[in-house]
Amino acid sequence: MSESLDQYKREAALAAVAEVRPGMVVGLGHGSTAIHAIREIARLLDSGELHDIRGLPCSEHVAREARKKGMGVVNLGEVEGADLTIDGADELTETCDAVKGGGGALLSEKIVHQNSRRIILIVDYTKFVSRLGEKRALPVEVAKYGWQAQQRFIKSLGAMSADLRQDDSGEPFTTDHGHFILDCRFDPMDDPHALAQALESRAGIMEHGLFLNMAQEARVAGPEGLRTLRR
Amino acid sequence: MSESLDQYKREAALAAVAEVRPGMVVGLGHGSTAIHAIREIARLLDSGELHDIRGLPCSEHVAREARKKGMGVVNLGEVEGADLTIDGADELTETCDAVKGGGGALLSEKIVHQNSRRIILIVDYTKFVSRLGEKRALPVEVAKYGWQAQQRFIKSLGAMSADLRQDDSGEPFTTDHGHFILDCRFDPMDDPHALAQALESRAGIMEHGLFLNMAQEARVAGPEGLRTLRR
Repeated sequence: MSESLDQYKREAALAAVAEVRPGMVVGLGHGSTAIHAIREIARLLDSGELHDIRGLPCSEHVAREARKKGMGVVNLGEVEGADLTIDGADELTETCDAVKGGGGALLSEKIVHQNSRRIILIVDYTKFVSRLGEKRALPVEVAKYGWQAQQRFIKSLGAMSADLRQDDSGEPFTTDHGHFILDCRFDPMDDPHALAQALESRAGIMEHGLFLNMAQEARVAGPEGLRTLRR
Repeated sequence: MSESLDQYKREAALAAVAEVRPGMVVGLGHGSTAIHAIREIARLLDSGELHDIRGLPCSEHVAREARKKGMGVVNLGEVEGADLTIDGADELTETCDAVKGGGGALLSEKIVHQNSRRIILIVDYTKFVSRLGEKRALPVEVAKYGWQAQQRFIKSLGAMSADLRQDDSGEPFTTDHGHFILDCRFDPMDDPHALAQALESRAGIMEHGLFLNMAQEARVAGPEGLRTLRR
């Protein structure tokens, strides 16, 4: 990743963390942009500018990262949800709809989003799109049992491809939940809601990367400065 | 289980197996009634009355059972689906809608049903209901991550209870897919379709036991004889 792209990610993260207040439960996304938010919250806790923050992490990886930085960590058995969730996205539209799942944590991320009072997505400008599906394949998490039937089904919905994601060693990538991911290339989507519903009503499709009507806001950082988007 | 109840299960199973023809891929459900169908198919293969049958099992347990009886076993990577699926149910209505999942295999069973040309449900008469939810709790399979949030959500939909299923040793029961099951007691359902859709659109709910508009037929055996139901 270019250094300046990482700088934009950090800038977006810092803008979102400025909304964190003492006493909050903060939902912590997985991924390279969200990690900047964790670091910044940890810095503010260290300096005393923030206090009494508990993190609700989207993955074991993020939980470890947060604990390492001295942040208290809770789960959805201990709290009803997050006051504010700060999370990245792989594609983001003007109305704060998003595609997520590049890092493979889409299921836990969506569970946390569903249980958040307020969500701010943070992205560098390269993630911004007019229509979802423009730049990225849609990650779809599927049960291992009968996954090939889901691949056929997704192609029947118009996907040009639905590739089983592999890990670095060339084996099928397995999520934290024990499922596979199909990276599904669609044309830019005219009706992502219809696609989401078709995927949700299918047994064996455990989750998909369309995050629609969830985030209220986004921060987008790029060479032309920082933009705030609202749904 | 009383001996006569088991006899009714067997009677229903035999009536469904009479529809099996040579060359078929047969979807094999999990559970005490479906096991009678496997035994009967095995008997017909042994006697030469049937040949060239491949089973598409809904669980590793059923796969072992089928192999033990000398039946060839395939998966959804090798075949597109089943020509005929024979499966039990925990509740069954006049229109062949069902509640399933008492045995914990609801997710794989629904995947097989979805990929079946024809489905016959087989039950003893005690499973017959006017409305789903009359006799049994609805099994809902949930991701372990954040399962308590699903429990709260299901109660918000009107469930009187949503109990974490336990295994014989008192530990939470884990499905073949690595999830928990919440057994959810609702009043007899006026609109199971609306409930199904609410559950399906929720991240972290991996599957539910409502099998609606799936089976075309059922065989119900009881003291008054054998009934055939059609959707």
